[in-house]
Amino acid sequence: MSVIRYDPTTDEWVIIATERAKRPHDFKKATRPRVLTPHEASCPFCPGNEAMTPPEVFHIPNNERNGWAVRVVPNKFAALTLQGDPRIREHGPLFKEMDGVGHHEVIIETPIHNRFLSLMEDAEVEQVVHAYRERYLALRQDQRVKLILIFKNHGEAAGTSLEHPHSQLVATPVVPASIRRRYEVAVRYYDVTGRCLYCDIVETERKAGERVVLETDDFLVFHPFASKSPFETWIVPKRHRPSFDQITLEECRALAAVLKTTLVRLTQALNDPDYNFAIHTAPIGDEDKEYYLWHIQIVPRLTTMAGFEIGSGMRINTANPEETARFLRESTTRA
Amino acid sequence: MSVIRYDPTTDEWVIIATERAKRPHDFKKATRPRVLTPHEASCPFCPGNEAMTPPEVFHIPNNERNGWAVRVVPNKFAALTLQGDPRIREHGPLFKEMDGVGHHEVIIETPIHNRFLSLMEDAEVEQVVHAYRERYLALRQDQRVKLILIFKNHGEAAGTSLEHPHSQLVATPVVPASIRRRYEVAVRYYDVTGRCLYCDIVETERKAGERVVLETDDFLVFHPFASKSPFETWIVPKRHRPSFDQITLEECRALAAVLKTTLVRLTQALNDPDYNFAIHTAPIGDEDKEYYLWHIQIVPRLTTMAGFEIGSGMRINTANPEETARFLRESTTRA
Repeated sequence: MSVIRYDPTTDEWVIIATERAKRPHDFKKATRPRVLTPHEASCPFCPGNEAMTPPEVFHIPNNERNGWAVRVVPNKFAALTLQGDPRIREHGPLFKEMDGVGHHEVIIETPIHNRFLSLMEDAEVEQVVHAYRERYLALRQDQRVKLILIFKNHGEAAGTSLEHPHSQLVATPVVPASIRRRYEVAVRYYDVTGRCLYCDIVETERKAGERVVLETDDFLVFHPFASKSPFETWIVPKRHRPSFDQITLEECRALAAVLKTTLVRLTQALNDPDYNFAIHTAPIGDEDKEYYLWHIQIVPRLTTMAGFEIGSGMRINTANPEETARFLRESTTRA
Repeated sequence: MSVIRYDPTTDEWVIIATERAKRPHDFKKATRPRVLTPHEASCPFCPGNEAMTPPEVFHIPNNERNGWAVRVVPNKFAALTLQGDPRIREHGPLFKEMDGVGHHEVIIETPIHNRFLSLMEDAEVEQVVHAYRERYLALRQDQRVKLILIFKNHGEAAGTSLEHPHSQLVATPVVPASIRRRYEVAVRYYDVTGRCLYCDIVETERKAGERVVLETDDFLVFHPFASKSPFETWIVPKRHRPSFDQITLEECRALAAVLKTTLVRLTQALNDPDYNFAIHTAPIGDEDKEYYLWHIQIVPRLTTMAGFEIGSGMRINTANPEETARFLRESTTRA
């Protein structure tokens, strides 16, 4: 029999359909390894092709090779751009529209075409996290920006067309409704308990243990109680930090290590699946409030959303998070 | 420059990214016609294989052929089932869970393996709509049911594994959060205007005309102002009807005709794309209220949701609804 579980962070119910569930190992991709070369002459993100991207806004130098280690450029096909008027125009009583004002940047994670995050040294991942932090701090200065979302699309099923390892950053001039709702749920919890919802979830998951993938001094990695899709994985700081902009340089190092380890485990256990991740953080201006806790949500793209999800907004997860977390814990000892 | 548009039915902003926009004809699938036979020996939905499905709960006879025209069976891999306890169990202060109690049925639309809705006679589509109505009316008698969602997955990208034409029905023991929010938005609009939000949208779109695909005596078909993905298409009754259960047999005929025509246009214009549709309707018990208006949302699966959408809940639509609606209007005269 399936169960329906309540997600305390979004007020949403999720169906965990164990009747149709696959066993965790069934989600392993049919072997189709990504065979890529370290350099691709036509790739706009490979060294030597810097002129193929818009002018860079930031880079971290690579001292050994006299080039760059991480490079940030505006997205050539930007969803939002600097130009335009952020005021809302009304089209009659029902319709509102504004110019697509904001920022859309690409964080090129490495000069090496086939060096995915899961293959990097921890120090290289740390440079990527530094770039995330630098760009967050720079763009939050723009008064028009209401939310900064850093995310990654790995592989075609995850929505990327370029193989070269990269993340993206979008800074929006509105707070997206689902972010506002998450935040409101956390504020309400704070108002009735005096505590941070996410800190309480971390503590509950740590004690329960059955959904924990790994724990470090600074982070807990687990599959949420009401996971919305198979192997959905959260990386959450154990110390209260509402916003990603508060991350220190020391914490960047710890985050890089735990992100790397988590991606290695997912990559090994599921045969290098396509995945997305996103850094959830407080809206701009609410970054110092007690209500929220930034965290990373990793979503391997193993299943397809269909008509039920589109029509109801409710998700059907065909795997049990206790089973998938155990599979990831045990896959390490096997590896 | 892109624009950001506000969806008055969900309170959500959508990015219409015209910078990265394709022209409407670019969404046409690379030709890969579905070549299927009228009968498939191994298909559990083909006549002769009735024993491969759970026992049927409803059928419409085919008098000519002494068999069935439409057949409804429980889903063999049901997300929700009749057994179990619909009471909510608390697991500590944060986590809640209940048994997956509900209904999950398959509406086999035709005995003919390759007779998609877009290829049927209007009278055949009408029988499918009759089956929708019958099952809605039957299942709403179950006191545990809070919402009935009827939907269709057409093609692999839309999440179906079985080719044989079929729709599905899921009856849930909770009102999904996104349905509740849609409903609350409509109630709030009703409270401050005394009118139905959806009726006002239909009237506004009809007058504006630029996003209209077609209009019949009973329905308006259009691409919403804040369409969330390319060629998202709504079919909305012109007369106020909060819930699908209020559809009359005459209206079933009119709906069948307009659904058929709309699917034919999408199929011709986009080269038989994979798509989902869902019938949005009021939660059970609120079906006679003035606030809501049932409607069909059709979503061709032409693009992939990526990390930005997963992290923000905000959608990036790479096509302009005025352009896609014009393309569908004009494609008919070309056809």
